[in-house]
Amino acid sequence: MEEIRVGLLGLGTVGSGVVKIINAHQDRLIHQIGCPVKVTKILVKNLEKERDVQITPDMLTKDATEIIDNENIDIVIEVMGGLEEARAHILRALQNGKHVVTANKDLMAVYGSELLSVAKENQCDLFYEASVAGGIPILRTIVDGLSSDRITKMMGIVNGTTNFILTKMSNEGRAYEDVLKEAQELGFAEADPTSDVEGLDAARKMTILATLGFSTNVELKDVSVKGISSITEEDLAYSQGLGYTMKLIGLAKRDGEKLEVSVEPTLLPNTHPLAAVQNEFNAVYVYGAAVGETMFYGPGAGSLPTATSIVSDLVAVMRNMRLGVNGNSTVTPQYPKVLKNEDEITAKYFLRIHVKDEVGVFAQVTSLFSEYGASFEKIIQTPLEEKGTAEIVLVTHHTSLTSYKSILQRLEGLNVVQGVKASYRIEGEGK
Amino acid sequence: MEEIRVGLLGLGTVGSGVVKIINAHQDRLIHQIGCPVKVTKILVKNLEKERDVQITPDMLTKDATEIIDNENIDIVIEVMGGLEEARAHILRALQNGKHVVTANKDLMAVYGSELLSVAKENQCDLFYEASVAGGIPILRTIVDGLSSDRITKMMGIVNGTTNFILTKMSNEGRAYEDVLKEAQELGFAEADPTSDVEGLDAARKMTILATLGFSTNVELKDVSVKGISSITEEDLAYSQGLGYTMKLIGLAKRDGEKLEVSVEPTLLPNTHPLAAVQNEFNAVYVYGAAVGETMFYGPGAGSLPTATSIVSDLVAVMRNMRLGVNGNSTVTPQYPKVLKNEDEITAKYFLRIHVKDEVGVFAQVTSLFSEYGASFEKIIQTPLEEKGTAEIVLVTHHTSLTSYKSILQRLEGLNVVQGVKASYRIEGEGK
Repeated sequence: MEEIRVGLLGLGTVGSGVVKIINAHQDRLIHQIGCPVKVTKILVKNLEKERDVQITPDMLTKDATEIIDNENIDIVIEVMGGLEEARAHILRALQNGKHVVTANKDLMAVYGSELLSVAKENQCDLFYEASVAGGIPILRTIVDGLSSDRITKMMGIVNGTTNFILTKMSNEGRAYEDVLKEAQELGFAEADPTSDVEGLDAARKMTILATLGFSTNVELKDVSVKGISSITEEDLAYSQGLGYTMKLIGLAKRDGEKLEVSVEPTLLPNTHPLAAVQNEFNAVYVYGAAVGETMFYGPGAGSLPTATSIVSDLVAVMRNMRLGVNGNSTVTPQYPKVLKNEDEITAKYFLRIHVKDEVGVFAQVTSLFSEYGASFEKIIQTPLEEKGTAEIVLVTHHTSLTSYKSILQRLEGLNVVQGVKASYRIEGEGK
Repeated sequence: MEEIRVGLLGLGTVGSGVVKIINAHQDRLIHQIGCPVKVTKILVKNLEKERDVQITPDMLTKDATEIIDNENIDIVIEVMGGLEEARAHILRALQNGKHVVTANKDLMAVYGSELLSVAKENQCDLFYEASVAGGIPILRTIVDGLSSDRITKMMGIVNGTTNFILTKMSNEGRAYEDVLKEAQELGFAEADPTSDVEGLDAARKMTILATLGFSTNVELKDVSVKGISSITEEDLAYSQGLGYTMKLIGLAKRDGEKLEVSVEPTLLPNTHPLAAVQNEFNAVYVYGAAVGETMFYGPGAGSLPTATSIVSDLVAVMRNMRLGVNGNSTVTPQYPKVLKNEDEITAKYFLRIHVKDEVGVFAQVTSLFSEYGASFEKIIQTPLEEKGTAEIVLVTHHTSLTSYKSILQRLEGLNVVQGVKASYRIEGEGK
């Protein structure tokens, strides 16, 4: 092999980062793979735009077929984002025998299984390390590092925007809207933050992690999702008082063969390793039956961290090319999917309700829990300034989700209950 | 390949764990590598001893040549420990074309370069993931996950015993000797704890990490080492008051091509991710020029975590065998080693001294620092109960190690200084 030729779909900040790293590390890459690697064609929308990266005009094209149908290109790196167009390009590239590296989490969450099957059929590599937790080599760790273990639980802080917001709210006692605005000004949150703050971005990443970690085809619709936009300063103050830290946690758990995958604001004991993950950082906690607790921490986004992951994937593809073993490490799910029903999902919960400040109310509330066999670890009752209202905060013992949902519904129906103000799952005590 | 045959050197707790994992995961291993894997011979010291693992008597031998010279054995797993004998066995196994997996950090720290060269010459794999931070796949992460980045700094909590002791001392305000005794009773510290508490065990692991991360042949003698046995409750109380957490940190750092590697009790800001690593857990923090801050957390020891790492290495060897590419991923150092001299090592320091409680003493002490161009970030002076004595705690700005050592020596010589009670490096502020 004289040289390995790479085509790039997209030249935004991540794409530019990839070009820069390949240029800057040319000597080391030659040492690692034994021949030069060259970016030859780049798909862009605008040929005229000024770009802060060393490229010649003839490298740019507005026509994707010049890359995906180009016989002289060995590897396609997809950093254009979006869904249908990216899927079509990658499918065609794979069918043309090109290896693909992508950072596209939306795509892998929705079309991952299809793309991986096509890659395998065509003996191509399809790597996507950068799609989850940008700078953390978590997918490789799951596939290789923990290959001899059985992963039973993954908990991820996989969205930097929401972790930044929750960290600021917790540390500075500030309101959600206020911190969101700061995050937008600092560039940690987008103008339309919905996908981040409502948990959709995290759900996509958990879909990818659960599929790989449990080797079963988890789909986006299997993930129950709740965002952070309704968290209040009161909730955070109570959590801290009880020794918990609030995080937006993606949870993928299996008991026997049955799975649950969710993304929701979750209380973790302060001593849990994920509780210390601050600001825009990401981390994935993995529990293996043999290895026990492990955690992988790093930047979740950013052009250079993401580009680093992409180039690491590129190096893996190129090594495989030199060895003639492409497609062998493409992992497709091997087990059928069995989801837990709500009866089989159990957890502890934190609940904050407002009640009439009258004799007998407390007993009414607690006896409702008893009806469902739910018991408490902690109860705090505080009279509020509003006359005639008291606030009750409860921490339950483990309860099934079915029972818990019934309790919530029945509470809302009680005459003495003025409102269920907040409800959060508690995780991370024990394994 | 009908089956892959494995010989084991040693059958202690880790060796037994390996046998158990291979037996328990036989189906999955077949799926991953396409043929069964079988442990056929095991070197033991005592043939008669009862063992809590499924083996037949004919599998045991007291003669190592029945494994390392056995034509029917493909892979040798070394879990016997020790230095010279293990080295001799592994060398012979490699020369006989067998792949080797080892968990032996002493061996890899001392003879790693030699063994890796011999492995490469014989186109054999030599993997040693379990030798550093038992259950954390950190070596694979450095080689593969961060392959396209330039690592500039690694900080490791790589000894569980000392982290357990420091955690207990910090959280419970207890004395070193007292906590050491508890750790020994709980099995977290050995009867002779010297190698752990004096930092030698951590130094071996940092030798391995630095060699791999910087791709240069770092030797044990290059590591400056200081243990935790002289840390007092006073030091921990002051650290906490100043916002620091005390950890035994293995540091491997490079500026340009110049390296430093050390193991010493170090103060970290409470917000540093390593500061949250509690009890017997290990973690390795890696700073890459492009990726920025990452950290990998997990159990540092224990028979099942360590055995899991060994079996993951075994799976990697077996995959390579199926693909016919053994020896390709054996990494040998590629750069010459240039160590920093003490003038080029700079850090912030925490210093606690006792002085005569007299007018002008403070000025004498601070002017000594000024002579060396060293300045302070914080100074706390407290009169002590002993009459006529005051305690001064200083936090310096960045100072060269040469200047700092001179200052310490000059301080001890000052008439008004009754003693330098403690001195610790501060790390982890900034990158």
